[in-house]
Amino acid sequence: MADAPVDFKLLAGAGVPTRDFKAGDVIFKQGDPAQELFIIQSGEVEIRLGNRVLERLSRYSIFGEMALVDAVPRSATAVAVGDVKLVSVSEKQFLFLISNTPYFALNVMRVMAWRLRMANSAL
Amino acid sequence: MADAPVDFKLLAGAGVPTRDFKAGDVIFKQGDPAQELFIIQSGEVEIRLGNRVLERLSRYSIFGEMALVDAVPRSATAVAVGDVKLVSVSEKQFLFLISNTPYFALNVMRVMAWRLRMANSAL
Repeated sequence: MADAPVDFKLLAGAGVPTRDFKAGDVIFKQGDPAQELFIIQSGEVEIRLGNRVLERLSRYSIFGEMALVDAVPRSATAVAVGDVKLVSVSEKQFLFLISNTPYFALNVMRVMAWRLRMANSAL
Repeated sequence: MADAPVDFKLLAGAGVPTRDFKAGDVIFKQGDPAQELFIIQSGEVEIRLGNRVLERLSRYSIFGEMALVDAVPRSATAVAVGDVKLVSVSEKQFLFLISNTPYFALNVMRVMAWRLRMANSAL
């Protein structure tokens, strides 16, 4: 599976507080309420829908942005593949980033467009 | 098919110049280079991938934003269902809107998140 077209390294540098997960840990579950999105500082994460793996994400990828954008529950489940360090971005921080750094907004759109292309090509 | 969660009425009011299409007209074709996105001022548009109708869009819906976001060719074909009036937003205008109206950026993301949910639920 190809990598996403952009990374979010600037938001996940050394010194940023992280949350740590072990292999198999569920980061969030489909149907959960959503308060944050995540950027992978290290490790890999799988996005799963039932038994299907929608995507396997690596360092500096973003995930969990969909539920923040439209304020609905998580539409898929995120699972740590190995040891994973995640940077959390709250809804408030997300809205701040969109308002103040248009390039961030555009990069989030790029990732979403890329996921949409992948989903449509799998139809 | 449910309607998208947001509309773009503010960008497609009376007095804005439109481009007019007749039933069956191809607005853009999969693989075309992309210079603009569209907002429907009146009428309906189908987004097609091969023989499959991905979406049928009505008044004040946005489409064509994906190719602007990631600068790749059109990923689907857009066809006028009946008489259609479209407002065109150039790439330059799009980047201006994202930079100056964070709410616009968020609304585009909302539409993309909604399309992604539809695509994933069809997998």
